[in-house]
Amino acid sequence: MTSSQGLLVGLDIGGTKIEATVANAEPVRLATVVAPTDCRSPAHLVASIGATIDRALDAANAVRGDVAAIGGGVPGMVDHGQGVARLAVNLNLRDYPLGPTLADLFQCPVGLENDVRLAAVGIYGHLRQQHPERYADLRHLAYLSLGTGVAAGLILDGELFRGARGMAGEVGHIQVDPDGPLCNCGARGCLEMMISGTAAGLMAEAALEQDTPAARASALQQQRPVTSRMLFAAAGKEDPLAVTLTAQFGDYVARALYAMLLAYDVEVLALGGGVVRAGPAFLVPVRAGIDRVRATQPLAHSLFSPEMVVTAPEHNMGAWGGIMLAAEMTDRSFDQTKLRRKS
Amino acid sequence: MTSSQGLLVGLDIGGTKIEATVANAEPVRLATVVAPTDCRSPAHLVASIGATIDRALDAANAVRGDVAAIGGGVPGMVDHGQGVARLAVNLNLRDYPLGPTLADLFQCPVGLENDVRLAAVGIYGHLRQQHPERYADLRHLAYLSLGTGVAAGLILDGELFRGARGMAGEVGHIQVDPDGPLCNCGARGCLEMMISGTAAGLMAEAALEQDTPAARASALQQQRPVTSRMLFAAAGKEDPLAVTLTAQFGDYVARALYAMLLAYDVEVLALGGGVVRAGPAFLVPVRAGIDRVRATQPLAHSLFSPEMVVTAPEHNMGAWGGIMLAAEMTDRSFDQTKLRRKS
Repeated sequence: MTSSQGLLVGLDIGGTKIEATVANAEPVRLATVVAPTDCRSPAHLVASIGATIDRALDAANAVRGDVAAIGGGVPGMVDHGQGVARLAVNLNLRDYPLGPTLADLFQCPVGLENDVRLAAVGIYGHLRQQHPERYADLRHLAYLSLGTGVAAGLILDGELFRGARGMAGEVGHIQVDPDGPLCNCGARGCLEMMISGTAAGLMAEAALEQDTPAARASALQQQRPVTSRMLFAAAGKEDPLAVTLTAQFGDYVARALYAMLLAYDVEVLALGGGVVRAGPAFLVPVRAGIDRVRATQPLAHSLFSPEMVVTAPEHNMGAWGGIMLAAEMTDRSFDQTKLRRKS
Repeated sequence: MTSSQGLLVGLDIGGTKIEATVANAEPVRLATVVAPTDCRSPAHLVASIGATIDRALDAANAVRGDVAAIGGGVPGMVDHGQGVARLAVNLNLRDYPLGPTLADLFQCPVGLENDVRLAAVGIYGHLRQQHPERYADLRHLAYLSLGTGVAAGLILDGELFRGARGMAGEVGHIQVDPDGPLCNCGARGCLEMMISGTAAGLMAEAALEQDTPAARASALQQQRPVTSRMLFAAAGKEDPLAVTLTAQFGDYVARALYAMLLAYDVEVLALGGGVVRAGPAFLVPVRAGIDRVRATQPLAHSLFSPEMVVTAPEHNMGAWGGIMLAAEMTDRSFDQTKLRRKS
């Protein structure tokens, strides 16, 4: 198998688990393996990444020599040009040349990117590949990741937009309520304090502390401290307190989506991250929130179509973005993504 | 004079006045004329634009036949591809082909753009041309216009970014305070209700209504209804109420600038519009607000350098953006601006 027809590896390297996906040059997914991350040291991390890739290659009946390129995402600040993880707290990395280290190990080009940016690339590629009838001409997409934190990945004019320092889309610390909860960043009511998984849990805890009939009656009292997953599960079971709180949460998310629309004027707003895995218990309140924004704001009514909002598909879009990045490195004519702008 | 060496005309077509600038192909400004806008009908508008251009050409010792291209900005929604003003309330235009009409009148290509977008192009071109030692490599700039309304123009990766429907940067209706004043758009605490000139006036009026010592003692009581210009003038004269209100206003502007930085990760944040003309009475509180944001938020401290923030120079950057747009239409190799992205 020659390098130009070689296999592509996409990685999503999280603080608790690594997902490695192997695809052929088309690209079509051949295998995916998820394994725990070993963050004890950079060397342990590299070993766990290598082992996960090896398992995925094995599942695809391939070996290291078949790999043409690797693309991976890490949570944190990344110097994508150098392949250096500048600061990835959850991976215990600071100024570590993860890209070059993996390139040395696998003897192939390796691209490194921030995980949320890379997931945006993955969703963009996925939509265009899987639904060409609808998305062949898609140019602008914003991906809002709701997990422990909140951040956005941006595809503008068909290309990943990073900004001057790779910080474009760090919307989690935009203040949206001056009277909101205090954020680690020092400000009150950052978006991250309103629509992250962490925020959902804190919101539930604060409500449960209050001496109200709904709080006293809530099944969540038995599960404290409450996580966002528990909150949405309780809402799914019609717990009145959880229903009220998730409706409020859906309003916040809808307002954030509308703000992204005004800021970036994208065609698709994609939602992903841990919170979104709650499924309908999350999505139904978000849809209701969008309806409320549209009903009260005429500008929103004309600009903000509910059809714009999609959720990331089941499988990991971060690792799929890694496949896109790897494809970009092996074939400049590959048109599913254009990660590098002309300069 | 051949067309390729012809003159460029830049227009800023506002609801009350038209500015026409004539430049040579370098481009160097030769003449600028400002005249009242006649909005009674599209025909009157075109006549007043034509007369203003003629006066500017006359001041540059030139005639219509010397004009190689015209670029102009209008306040409102513009279909830049067709040169159609979709909705420009202040100009009394709806779905009017202003570009083609002017092209017919002057027998040359005419480009039409939203005025705030075009001012962003003008500032970008101006900074690179006038301060190449500092801005030759400038790639990303966000221009925040604070006037009757609030909107942003974006230069991303060296090109004007419009978004899918030309609405990118319509940040005026992003909600930043759910308890803020009610906006025409139907939402509370839109950015436009916090940092526009209109908002500054309303803020002053609301404070003057309150029975406080500062309100009773304020010289502004003699000038009601108070405009933003009056408010900043009073602050310049150390009126205590005006000083308090403009400090608050500066905080809001600083927070908006920081939000733009997180959203777009630009290298330069440019401020312009009517409010900015208040000069130091506006700028000093904004600088103080930036200092406060930086002091309370470590992320802001590292990302948000006060040197990033510039104000538009004295002369009209909208008309200068028109010159850039005209240059783009006459010479594709002209590198001060790249208004059209490859598709």
